[in-house]
Amino acid sequence: MEKEGLSTNLIYEGKAKKIFAIPGEPDHVFMEFKDSLTAFNAQKKGSFDSKGAINRNIAALIFRELESQGILSHYIESVGERGMKTKRVEIIPLEVVVRNILAGSTAKKMGRNEGEKLERPLVEFYYKKDELNDPFVSDDQIMAFKIADEPTLIELKKQALLINKALIDLFLRLGIQLVDFKVEFGKTSQGQILLADEITPDCCRLWDVKTGEKMDKDRFRRDLGSVDQYYLEVLNRLEKVIGGNA
Amino acid sequence: MEKEGLSTNLIYEGKAKKIFAIPGEPDHVFMEFKDSLTAFNAQKKGSFDSKGAINRNIAALIFRELESQGILSHYIESVGERGMKTKRVEIIPLEVVVRNILAGSTAKKMGRNEGEKLERPLVEFYYKKDELNDPFVSDDQIMAFKIADEPTLIELKKQALLINKALIDLFLRLGIQLVDFKVEFGKTSQGQILLADEITPDCCRLWDVKTGEKMDKDRFRRDLGSVDQYYLEVLNRLEKVIGGNA
Repeated sequence: MEKEGLSTNLIYEGKAKKIFAIPGEPDHVFMEFKDSLTAFNAQKKGSFDSKGAINRNIAALIFRELESQGILSHYIESVGERGMKTKRVEIIPLEVVVRNILAGSTAKKMGRNEGEKLERPLVEFYYKKDELNDPFVSDDQIMAFKIADEPTLIELKKQALLINKALIDLFLRLGIQLVDFKVEFGKTSQGQILLADEITPDCCRLWDVKTGEKMDKDRFRRDLGSVDQYYLEVLNRLEKVIGGNA
Repeated sequence: MEKEGLSTNLIYEGKAKKIFAIPGEPDHVFMEFKDSLTAFNAQKKGSFDSKGAINRNIAALIFRELESQGILSHYIESVGERGMKTKRVEIIPLEVVVRNILAGSTAKKMGRNEGEKLERPLVEFYYKKDELNDPFVSDDQIMAFKIADEPTLIELKKQALLINKALIDLFLRLGIQLVDFKVEFGKTSQGQILLADEITPDCCRLWDVKTGEKMDKDRFRRDLGSVDQYYLEVLNRLEKVIGGNA
């Protein structure tokens, strides 16, 4: 794949990725992981060298591991150092969050302590709309505002819980507790709903089982330092346990 | 009923009402409507003379009208000028909001215009907790945090939609459009779920059909003036259409 040719076909640039059309492959896109780090709806900005490459590798290994367990995603193959060829999907404008342990906005909103274990996973939806600050929405609001219909919602919840189960097991094998994560889904031109976007420390809360140390974007959000080292540590453990290159 | 005796048995004082125990009647309470008006979680405070009496009368007429249509509430009888004898219930800590037309916090959150008509009523839940500012919660959060169980949630939605239907019709007969309203429910000692609290211009958005004029607490929230006159006008129309004294 000629990366140079692709760079003229930018479809979309997000906070952490660029999406390019691939000439002659209308059902595929090329996704490039950037080195930038943002938080609080991009009010806080940073970056570190090789962040894009590390996250591409983490995402690729996770997508492949999920696929081996029957959970399909948009991932097709890794390209170059920070690229990924994926199926072209139309993103459903919902951030789907699954929580196993309370942390972040929901703990704060409900007046609960970070670290409180939930008896069962909690699925939440946030409407993807930067200018509205990605508001939390209920099922009934999602349907009333036609963000998604009921069968789609049911499918998103089902897939999110399956992904959660697989990720809990995978991260435990790495000595990491999966606190929560955010995923996005997309629809293919055939109407299939697929896991899309990425699964990386940018959108998970990952706590080291032994030390309790945070190994995710909270290090950046909360100025805990060594962001790059912890992202790399997640990748190293993934490579060791799953094996193979991303 | 001796009101003087009751006043020594204060159970609870809220922003707009006081609740008293009734000696010898453990399954009943006495509810007194205050003249105070508050908004924005009591950050804005006001009052007007006879507000308590007007709201008691409005609530009583509405509860009786709903009962005549088979929708039960905690209301038993009106007592004195601003009092109401009700069944004693344990309040379910959820504010149940039904919206027919967009206004207020949801319009703002979703970036929509006030006045936009929804194709079907939208039911929302807010966790009643002043110190958390009554956060908006989803069904899944309500269950995960054990605020209410699934059968209770289903019952609340069912009753809220029935109440909405009855109130839309009632207010239309008064030349008033029901934009949205907030209700609360309680459980009796026998476990029956009943409409509780109040239905008054404090917790509804009411727009005059002909003039579009607001006839509810938004007059106070937004400093539109003549709050007392519009509350009284709602009562006058209710008395004219339903007839009888509250």
